[in-house]
This record gives sequence, structure tokens and C-alpha cells, in this order.
Amino acid sequence: MTLALSDQDRAWLDELAASIYLVNGLARQRAEERQQTLIKPPGSLGELETISVRLAAILGSERPAPDGATVIVAAADHGVSADGVSAFPAAVTAAMTQGLLAPTAAGTGGAAISAIARSVRADVVVLDCGVNAELPDHPQLRKVAVRRGTDNLRVGPAMSGTEAVAMIRAGADAARAAIAGGADFVVPAEIGIGNTTAAAVITARALDRHPADVTGRGTGIDDAVLDHKIAVVAEALARADAEDPVEVLAEFGGFEIAAMVGMMLATADEQRVIVLDGFVEAAAALIAVSIAPAVNDYLVATGRCAERGHGAQLADLGLRPLWDLGLRLGEGTGGALAIPVLRAAAATLREMQTFAEAGVPTE
Amino acid sequence: MTLALSDQDRAWLDELAASIYLVNGLARQRAEERQQTLIKPPGSLGELETISVRLAAILGSERPAPDGATVIVAAADHGVSADGVSAFPAAVTAAMTQGLLAPTAAGTGGAAISAIARSVRADVVVLDCGVNAELPDHPQLRKVAVRRGTDNLRVGPAMSGTEAVAMIRAGADAARAAIAGGADFVVPAEIGIGNTTAAAVITARALDRHPADVTGRGTGIDDAVLDHKIAVVAEALARADAEDPVEVLAEFGGFEIAAMVGMMLATADEQRVIVLDGFVEAAAALIAVSIAPAVNDYLVATGRCAERGHGAQLADLGLRPLWDLGLRLGEGTGGALAIPVLRAAAATLREMQTFAEAGVPTE
Repeated sequence: MTLALSDQDRAWLDELAASIYLVNGLARQRAEERQQTLIKPPGSLGELETISVRLAAILGSERPAPDGATVIVAAADHGVSADGVSAFPAAVTAAMTQGLLAPTAAGTGGAAISAIARSVRADVVVLDCGVNAELPDHPQLRKVAVRRGTDNLRVGPAMSGTEAVAMIRAGADAARAAIAGGADFVVPAEIGIGNTTAAAVITARALDRHPADVTGRGTGIDDAVLDHKIAVVAEALARADAEDPVEVLAEFGGFEIAAMVGMMLATADEQRVIVLDGFVEAAAALIAVSIAPAVNDYLVATGRCAERGHGAQLADLGLRPLWDLGLRLGEGTGGALAIPVLRAAAATLREMQTFAEAGVPTE
Repeated sequence: MTLALSDQDRAWLDELAASIYLVNGLARQRAEERQQTLIKPPGSLGELETISVRLAAILGSERPAPDGATVIVAAADHGVSADGVSAFPAAVTAAMTQGLLAPTAAGTGGAAISAIARSVRADVVVLDCGVNAELPDHPQLRKVAVRRGTDNLRVGPAMSGTEAVAMIRAGADAARAAIAGGADFVVPAEIGIGNTTAAAVITARALDRHPADVTGRGTGIDDAVLDHKIAVVAEALARADAEDPVEVLAEFGGFEIAAMVGMMLATADEQRVIVLDGFVEAAAALIAVSIAPAVNDYLVATGRCAERGHGAQLADLGLRPLWDLGLRLGEGTGGALAIPVLRAAAATLREMQTFAEAGVPTE
């Protein structure tokens, strides 16, 4: 298994990275100016003002009108889960993924993200990027896996370079399909027992941090398992000195992490909003921004998550999260929950009157 | 002008207070148990779990289905604004209120709350509780004022006891009408230049705090004006020793604060959710809870606001806010913004599968 990319894969990735525009600085400036004239004391809408300006820059309009939203849940298994780094057995990946698709009285899906997405009017698409089970056919499911789980990143590369690029492509295709279907917000999301270990290794390498600084409790491991997990992360880091972002992804990543990298690259390329929530997602963002720095300004961070290392990831990306609601489930729950708030932020910039329009005295 | 209530007013208020049920402890217990069995690691939905249980207790079902929401914006002027306690002239009250009703390209209303409410699918009702202007007739506007602004609370009672009860009734009627129209969430809200001064006096008296601890910058006053505002609050407190909640309201309140007290009492009486956001709103909540302690459990606190004293108010009410988005506008913007998050919290409890239903292994 080789990490080196084929010439064809490298060319495809370089072309995608080069095609991503910077966000629209003129729309940003106009939005900032407009915010100052709206019928309210300047700054009194707090974070909504900051977000609204960011959305204006991404969408290229000082009156942005984002509406459609798609949560793309990439699911895959991890060889490293055999090392006992998680509170749950690997079989939970398949079961959780099927929970997203199960018919229930309320509609499709009995998972948290299913309930939240219905509530906030977002679509959910599931990508099987390598779940270790034969999933049933389902209209919301795309089977894009090249195999059923990565190799154990502690002892060798998790995947080949070719596989990493295949998953980036699959994620990019899913994001473009969502956007073609009306999504202005894309929420990259994941299910994968073991994936906070992979994300911790990527984060430690990308930020040059000690494993203990960026390795957390995932779905709820105790102190002893956490110590073991940190040792696994350290062993992986010591094993390979990859620095190139796609090589880091192949060495230490998961198939679903690679797919999320692809979603982010394509969403930025389509000039839509990447809703960033969660630790594993932020590890993918570190890779995506390394591949194409212009991606950074298409990210909107929503929740601060409890996983250790998340703060360091966001600091590196220059992002401030909207809130801390204590969510640590994944599945895109945090990002989906923020969609109505992002829509509302855009609505203030788009629909409020200015003092002049309203004829309100200002002193 | 007398603060003493007529026998008839006192009887009406006592009857309303006595009719408010405690929230449903059995539904709360069932909801707590159900949260433990849903297909996720326990606690991994963070604050959403806490909120969902609170909604279950209020709505009396472990599968709560709240949907409709109405923001009731009470507007009134304040005699104390003549003392120069605000960054804006009193005329802004009328102008902001008209901004809520103005026809715009997007629909009715060019105010922040208009844009946000449309975005989150909430209705907006405006109560003229005593704006110092003749407002135009409008289908969203109810004119319930008894006069055009309070007297200056620094030098004498802001209103009579009869007037306070009249405004409590008007707010209660508005909340009941909203609930009859389908609102499960009622967002008491306000516009009123000078009303953070009134709210500071009420808060200082209710919590027995020093004026400097509970007096803030409102819409953005500078240090010198803040010092003056604190002196005004202190002078008012020294002037009158009222302790009875309705007397405190009449002495120091505003007509819109009294109306919000009525909204809260009636919403609790109808067993619906009071969405509490903002400093002036929390001052009204302190009065409402003093009148009828059972109201406390019908409150859901959304934003932490920058106004000094807000933390003390929430601590007294035993409430933890959902987030701090830096909003300090009023108009119900913070509460409205939270509606989709509250709906989503209920959706998780209502629509998620349990581990048993999903057939997911848990170890």
C-alpha cells in the first residue's frame, strides 16, 4: 500500500484546489456597512452580525438568502477500534448508520440527527464510506466504500493514497449533488467508532501538538482507556513522519474523514457555506485548508465541543464557535441545530430596514 | 395615585395566581427515563436533553410536540427617560414600534424581530401599552394603553396599582389569545426607551442588591451616563419601600413590564412555555414568580445578556441560559432565535428511537 498519489489523482486534486475562489471581499465590505445602518444600536445583534457578514462574503451578496441545508453523514469503520480506544464496540457504527435510515412513525430515521434535521428543515444524506457491514439499499444512502474499514493506523497506514483521493472525490460528489439540489448550507458529519483517535492523530500532526493535548474521551471513555488512547495516538505519530495533507489523511485518517475533506473542498468551490461542528469534522477541516487555504473563509463554526483539542483546532482555523451546548454525539447534530440561527442571521441583514428607510431619529 | 389594589383587582390576581398548576412531575420523570434509553451515549446531547425534559414537564408529555410560537412585543414610554438615562431619545420607542409594523418587501416589519420571526416561523404581536405617540391602526397591533407613558419613577410612583393590574390583564389576554391561536411558545418582549432603568430598580428591590450591581448600559450609554443612571436607580429605591410584587411593579415598573408579567402568568396558567430572554424580561419574571411561584418552572432561559444584573436575576430564578450570542437589542430577538433550538430539543425526545427499538448493541 502506497501513500504516493498517482499523477492523475494529484492533478485532479491540484485542479480542484486551484479552482476555489476567495470569498467575496466586496460583498463583505458592503454587508459590514449595511449592518451599521440597520434599525438597531450598532453591534446590538452580537454574533448574528458577525455571522451575517461572513455569510454575505461566502454567498457574494450583502443581502444573503441562504435556505436549503443538507447534512451529509459519512460513516466508516476504523481498524484502530480493535485496540479498544472507544467506549462502544465497532458494530455500533453499522447500527448507528442504520438508525439514520430506519422507518419510524415520524419519518425516516430514529437517530438524533434524523429528528433534528426534520425539525430544522434540513435533508440528510448518508454515505457508506466503509462500514463493516452490508447495509440495506435505501434512497438516502450512497454506497461509495472501497472497503469495509481502514487498517489499524497504529501499526501502518490506514489507507492508500488512492483510497484517500477516492473518498475525497466521493465526498465532493455528494456535496455537489446536495448543492445542485438546493443546499446553501452543507454540514459535513460522521459516524465511526474509533474516529476520534484518527482525528486526534491528524490534529496532533497538523498543529504539532502533544497527543495528550488533542486526545479526548470521545463517546465517554474512562481515565484508563484515555491513557491507552493517548499512547495509541503517540505510537501512530512516531511511526510515520508524513506532512503532506493527503499523506497525513491516508496515514492516520478514516474513510469518512477523507469524505468530509472532499465535501469541504467542493462546498467552497461551489461558494456555499460549510457548517463546521465537532472535533472529527475540524480535523477534516485542517486537512482541507492545508490542501486549499481559500477553504478557510467558507467555514462557519457552530458548537464548541467538549473533546480535548477542539479549541486548538478552531484557534488554528481562526474560528470562534457560536455556542457551547455540550453536544458530543456527532452525526451532524450540532451543525444541523445551528442552521436556523444562520438563516436568521442572514435574514436580519437581508430584511431589516435602515434607519433612513424607517425614518427613525438617531439622536 | 394609589398603589393599593382594589378588592376586585386583588381578587382577580389572587385567583389567577392560585389557578396556576405546578409543572407535570410525572411527565418530567418519564422524560428523564426516556432520555437515558435513546440511541446515543447518555448525556451526549448536552443542553438539549435538559431542555427537552423541561419542555416535557411543562407540556405534560414525555413526547412533547411544541411548535407554534408568538412573540408579544409590549411597547411603552417611561417618564424616567426625561432624566437622560438612555443613549436614545424617548421618540425612538414609537419609531421602533412602527418599525415592527411597517410594510417592507419581505413582509410586514423591518425591525430585527420581524426578520428573525419570519425566519423562525413565529408570529409577532405588538401591544401598545403606552407609547407616547398615536400609532396607526394595524392588524398586528393591539392598543391597550391607559396613558402615554409612566410618570418618572425617580420622583414618585410610575403608575397606580389599578393601572398595573390593567396592564397585567392586557398582557395575560394577549398571551391567551396567542395560545388559542396555536402558540406553544410565548416570548414576552419589550420596546421602551428608559426601561432598563425601571428593570434595574425592580431587580435591586427584588434581589436586595446594590444599584451598581444591577444597573447596566442598556442600548449603549457611556461611563458618565451610567453613573447618573445608577444614581437615579438609588434615588428611586430610597424613595419608596414597597415589597409586595404588584406594588413594586407600580412604583418602579413600566407599562410594558406589567404586560409581560401578565403574559407570564397566563402562559403558565395555560401550561405553555415562557421563553425568557433579556434583562427587562427577567425583571418581569421576578415579579411574576413573586406573585405565583409555580410560574418559575414554566420559564426556559435562552440568552445570557450583557446587561449587568442579568446573571443575578437568572441565579435567583435558578435558570441557566442556553447561550451567549451577545445580543442586547430586545424586541424578543433572543427568544425568537431560540425557538428552533427548543423545537429541536423536543423533537429528539419525541422522535428518536431507543436502543431497544433500533436493535443497537450497547456493549
